[in-house]
Amino acid sequence: MRLSRYFLPVLRETPKEADIVSHRLMLRAGMIRQESAGIYAWLPLGLKVLNRISAIVREEQNRAGAVELLMPTIQSAELWRESGRYDAYGKEMLRIADRHEREMLFGPTNEEMITEIFRASVKSYKDLPLNLYHIQWKFRDEIRPRFGTMRSREFLMKDAYSFDLDKEGARHSYNKMFVAYLRTFARLGLRAIPMQADTGPIGGDLSHEFIILADTGESEVFCHKDFLDFPIPGAETDFDDVAGLQDIVDSWTSLYAATSEKHDEARYAAISEGDKLSARGIEVGHIFYFGTKYSAPMGATVTAPDGHEVPVHMGSYGIGPSRLVAALIEASHDEKGIIWPEPVAPFDVALLNLKVGDAATDEASLKIYHALGLRGREVLYDDTDDRPGAKFATADLIGLPWQVVVGPKGLADGKVEVKRRGSDERELLSVEEAVNKVAG
Amino acid sequence: MRLSRYFLPVLRETPKEADIVSHRLMLRAGMIRQESAGIYAWLPLGLKVLNRISAIVREEQNRAGAVELLMPTIQSAELWRESGRYDAYGKEMLRIADRHEREMLFGPTNEEMITEIFRASVKSYKDLPLNLYHIQWKFRDEIRPRFGTMRSREFLMKDAYSFDLDKEGARHSYNKMFVAYLRTFARLGLRAIPMQADTGPIGGDLSHEFIILADTGESEVFCHKDFLDFPIPGAETDFDDVAGLQDIVDSWTSLYAATSEKHDEARYAAISEGDKLSARGIEVGHIFYFGTKYSAPMGATVTAPDGHEVPVHMGSYGIGPSRLVAALIEASHDEKGIIWPEPVAPFDVALLNLKVGDAATDEASLKIYHALGLRGREVLYDDTDDRPGAKFATADLIGLPWQVVVGPKGLADGKVEVKRRGSDERELLSVEEAVNKVAG
Repeated sequence: MRLSRYFLPVLRETPKEADIVSHRLMLRAGMIRQESAGIYAWLPLGLKVLNRISAIVREEQNRAGAVELLMPTIQSAELWRESGRYDAYGKEMLRIADRHEREMLFGPTNEEMITEIFRASVKSYKDLPLNLYHIQWKFRDEIRPRFGTMRSREFLMKDAYSFDLDKEGARHSYNKMFVAYLRTFARLGLRAIPMQADTGPIGGDLSHEFIILADTGESEVFCHKDFLDFPIPGAETDFDDVAGLQDIVDSWTSLYAATSEKHDEARYAAISEGDKLSARGIEVGHIFYFGTKYSAPMGATVTAPDGHEVPVHMGSYGIGPSRLVAALIEASHDEKGIIWPEPVAPFDVALLNLKVGDAATDEASLKIYHALGLRGREVLYDDTDDRPGAKFATADLIGLPWQVVVGPKGLADGKVEVKRRGSDERELLSVEEAVNKVAG
Repeated sequence: MRLSRYFLPVLRETPKEADIVSHRLMLRAGMIRQESAGIYAWLPLGLKVLNRISAIVREEQNRAGAVELLMPTIQSAELWRESGRYDAYGKEMLRIADRHEREMLFGPTNEEMITEIFRASVKSYKDLPLNLYHIQWKFRDEIRPRFGTMRSREFLMKDAYSFDLDKEGARHSYNKMFVAYLRTFARLGLRAIPMQADTGPIGGDLSHEFIILADTGESEVFCHKDFLDFPIPGAETDFDDVAGLQDIVDSWTSLYAATSEKHDEARYAAISEGDKLSARGIEVGHIFYFGTKYSAPMGATVTAPDGHEVPVHMGSYGIGPSRLVAALIEASHDEKGIIWPEPVAPFDVALLNLKVGDAATDEASLKIYHALGLRGREVLYDDTDDRPGAKFATADLIGLPWQVVVGPKGLADGKVEVKRRGSDERELLSVEEAVNKVAG
């Protein structure tokens, strides 16, 4: 993509309204624009990151056997009355009356609707297990939205819902999502640690929050530091292997890890001093078994092998891609801007032509642009007439993993500069060497 | 995908609430489920088609130089007051009050918001032309929603907005979209004919509806039959070639074509009898130049080369993917079900194992399943214990381009049956021949 034909409205000043670094950087890098309190437009660069995150989330959901559908944003109040949540939900639910004065709402979550879809068509235990998910915009009318897309009112959420005949089956479905989440966050370039979370009235141990460590995190977390080195389950993991998945989950829950809300001083104190890890964390996912909480009142039953009708056991599994964009920046930035992990970078390479209009730099830049494109690398080619200083600042701000700088001086010696955004390593290379270096 | 692990709730009966064939077939084929009046959940099979359509729309928008972003669904009433449309829009606009009693709305379209985004960051003619688009859910509170996703309340729309310094520039931007639309519909397997449409108070000739012909179409259309054979601009089309694009548009608008609203009996009568074509049509796209209608009141200006501030000239360009799913079915079905054009089919192949549990049919089916997967074909493998009759009916209903039938009798002779859904051509082939035939 040529920058002259792209839409990248970077800001040179630091926006005053932004409290946290990811919000500031997303505004400055032209990734988002606030349209109302807590409601953002995703500008082209931001949308690319959001889509790359969603694609990885989707691949890992599919790998674990979840099936994608898409529920609408607007739901009927009727449905929420069936579960008893319509009156209970409070002011965070955006309530709407349509032209016929029917009560509707903008879905903050989808347990009721997915239960309705399930009960309409699944009748037998033979059709279980089933895990249905979607990636859709949701709305929670936060009283004081802030922190940019970390806690926005309109936000993108992947929510999956599992259906099983009994708790044993539900545990296996839960474990599939547990492993899928480990893989998802690792592929995003994050180390996420599962920590026990509140299960509400259901009780039990089947609720985990996945927390990433970041200095600017919203909450304090405490864990054994071995979590930092635990192996991530491979792509070849057999999600049908009940015992195998249980082993993975058992090992990932064998050591102490808790957010401040669930912190147990005594258990933490029992960890040997050198193995203690206390840090700031950001919640990036939540998985949850809730039994028959919705299926029983809403009549989502199946015929069991013994012929009886029983309500299905359900769980829900959430990841917020729009929140993850911010979380990734909180975990990976410096004073100059964002440092994208490669798997989610909006482009692979920033190509900076320092003297647009000069025959030599234009020719070398185009050669690199096309050669990298042919090798499958996405390049953002800065062919604008900005000054070199502005080009460097923009490239550092938007944080693409590689920078290739084509200037008249270097080119006189047959060299261009290749820089890694993360480590700041620089090399002077020929055009061919630069292409090979970046294309790997 | 193994059908036993998929979610495909087909209906054996014809739903009574559906007035048109696409609505009936989408419900029967388990593509959608109505959640409220005019509001649908997209079940897995429906979502796959919707995504394939959106991907083709996106590719052709990008090819024409449009840049993708994503605007939120919820907008502030303030913005619409600036253009004067908040009070004018009427009851089709879903109006919402948030918890602070701020007036919001679910966007039915995005002219105001994109103009706001533009004016916040583009200041000079040097940054033009610019075309920004998104593919996002919108809401129009139709008084009596019907015809399924053909006219639903919550619907998916690709809307692009072009910004130019003057009308000449805007005409070129318009032509880019005109050509992009010709290519888009052709790639979807549709022949769409551009017909002059109302331009409202602006006047001029820069407004076209793209209409496909279908016996069940909503409106009557009249045109020269040569439109059926006009060549579609190739992928190599140079969208920067102003004169070249104008030539394409001129040729595609050189002959008579009009919907009943704009029909001119005299001009139609002048067509020689054998060249007249009168048929039913479905609108699948609309492109529109509207000058400074939004930029002037909303202050979206740029500095012109002569130093003056001038409001930009804008156009908007819509395609509804959720409507297109229905339109495609209206244009391509028979009494047994849907017949998907290959580019939008949710899977390429239905693989029917007529005797699941039989070692020979299981082995042959799996061999075909894996071989086709390796050759890049998406296969829906019916490995359920349904009767053969039900499997055939489902395969015909969901309309995948190829069917491969593996039964014990054929297999005893070393043969499986390969059938084209569209033409009903059948061949008995060996497993290897079948794979080669289908993988092309």
